[in-house]
Amino acid sequence: MRTIEWDEKKDSVKLIDQSLLPGEYKILECKTLEALIDAIQSLKVRGAPALGAAGAFGVVLACTNEKSKGDVKKEVERLKKARPTAVNLFYGVNRTLNVAMPGRTLQEMKKYALEEARRIADEDVVVNKKIGDYGSELLEDGDVILTHCNAGRLACVDWGTALGVIRTAIEKGKRIEVIACETRPLNQGSRITTWELLQDEIPVTLIADSMSAVVMREGKVDKVIVGADRVVKEGVINKIGTYMHAVVAKEHKIPFYVAAPLSSFDIERSYKEVEIEERSPEELIFFGAEQIAPLEVKVYNPAFDFTPFELIEAVITEKGVLYPLLLTKGGYL
Amino acid sequence: MRTIEWDEKKDSVKLIDQSLLPGEYKILECKTLEALIDAIQSLKVRGAPALGAAGAFGVVLACTNEKSKGDVKKEVERLKKARPTAVNLFYGVNRTLNVAMPGRTLQEMKKYALEEARRIADEDVVVNKKIGDYGSELLEDGDVILTHCNAGRLACVDWGTALGVIRTAIEKGKRIEVIACETRPLNQGSRITTWELLQDEIPVTLIADSMSAVVMREGKVDKVIVGADRVVKEGVINKIGTYMHAVVAKEHKIPFYVAAPLSSFDIERSYKEVEIEERSPEELIFFGAEQIAPLEVKVYNPAFDFTPFELIEAVITEKGVLYPLLLTKGGYL
Repeated sequence: MRTIEWDEKKDSVKLIDQSLLPGEYKILECKTLEALIDAIQSLKVRGAPALGAAGAFGVVLACTNEKSKGDVKKEVERLKKARPTAVNLFYGVNRTLNVAMPGRTLQEMKKYALEEARRIADEDVVVNKKIGDYGSELLEDGDVILTHCNAGRLACVDWGTALGVIRTAIEKGKRIEVIACETRPLNQGSRITTWELLQDEIPVTLIADSMSAVVMREGKVDKVIVGADRVVKEGVINKIGTYMHAVVAKEHKIPFYVAAPLSSFDIERSYKEVEIEERSPEELIFFGAEQIAPLEVKVYNPAFDFTPFELIEAVITEKGVLYPLLLTKGGYL
Repeated sequence: MRTIEWDEKKDSVKLIDQSLLPGEYKILECKTLEALIDAIQSLKVRGAPALGAAGAFGVVLACTNEKSKGDVKKEVERLKKARPTAVNLFYGVNRTLNVAMPGRTLQEMKKYALEEARRIADEDVVVNKKIGDYGSELLEDGDVILTHCNAGRLACVDWGTALGVIRTAIEKGKRIEVIACETRPLNQGSRITTWELLQDEIPVTLIADSMSAVVMREGKVDKVIVGADRVVKEGVINKIGTYMHAVVAKEHKIPFYVAAPLSSFDIERSYKEVEIEERSPEELIFFGAEQIAPLEVKVYNPAFDFTPFELIEAVITEKGVLYPLLLTKGGYL
């Protein structure tokens, strides 16, 4: 199945529970907005494009369960606040709500919302395939690509952004290998990216995040491709660690690419205006049930960081490859 | 107690089991060389200077348990191979064995070995205090120091190298705060450095390794200080991740210091001649009992990396502060 779908029979949002991978593949049913918000906050569903679809299907859920138009509007506001950094969640909610609002009854609203949510999900797959098409032209036969976090099938509805580029390149007959950074503290790289790539039999090597500089120095990396939670005026906001990889890529003269749909663009805004989600200290003090740091230690745990365009060779979108330095110098961004 | 000591009553090496921290503080007794080698390989005792003492006390253990001079020589060869990268292990074994060999009986050899091993341990503390003295002059009141892995009391016999510099600076009345990187995959930073600093009430904030670039960009770091497993002709071999921090420190114009005793120096040798220990894939596939990556995934897991002198402001030793770029330009190194 896709990463996230609407289950017509059960009137619920069903999604692949990503917090259990790779040990267990389980489908989670969210029958309430509460359950969906919890799934978002505990990263059972994550990745900017997938959050867009989650927002959209969340509106359908609200139309299903609420008693009035006012309640729907109120409830989806809570959904929009589930995670603050990726712009797609707001985008998915707003776009679906706008289409649903003209409905005269809750049932009609739900019908409109579901049509729009499905359109968003289908579009996401089409968009990712286009990103794959454009991006794959940048890759050469034999390339080794370093990636961080998971910008794959499971970060989207299907196919993936950064990993979508790799999938399309392979589909076109290029031999591509991947180096996946584990992505602390929640290990989306080790848990999800490696799992997803092995499912497709794409060769992948797992490293700790701090090893990226070493594999680059050893000449083992040809390009870096990551996703984006939000593309802003001066650069890209993405999973914590992205900026570090970008700095070391520059030091080793390795091109650094971002693959992102235009729905992740928010280029009127400065990165300074975007709330960077700070997550619980427990993510660094515990690993599962195991305590790995003193309980009383102070922790700094931002979930995302900002990478300026100066460090980014290009942003791969469904409309083509943007070279931000050229654009900013030309005054376009 | 010290990190590692000889227990006269039990004729054994006793050491703080660092693999259990911070959850449990337990003293491990090694009555056989086998047990000591296992303790070294499973990182129950780790850190270049502590490994020097472990090597020295291991020779005492061999003299206690073996039946002939030949067996002692053979057994300590195995000890020297327990971990390949830190030079101090070989240094500790060789120095102690050289002193023990003239002994006419195994008992006399043991007596000589024990005296020498204790001298090595005591010297380590004196050396660390001197490193602390020199290094503390480089720190200013109010400095925030980023460190990686554990180059503290528990990496040495006592006091510490990188953390020793911080301890001495605080003893001299300077207010110093520490940012500790968790240090994947074995989390010596979260497990040991934060624990050790909190014991001494030194303010410490824990971050994931990939966050170092962000805290530097945000202006939260004044200096970086790390230890060394081996100082070679062209730079420093230290815990994996060190090179990455050094690259991002340079990008943010933050001075990067290495604190290391001269016993870690091996400057006739090129880094290319030093074996970088590659550890088990399981360290990245499991966390404790929890599986965090597919069992069949390929893993690259070097335990150390090489940082060239170009990225190092100075190496703090017990004989003074060496500025490697000045030395290499002057032809001294």
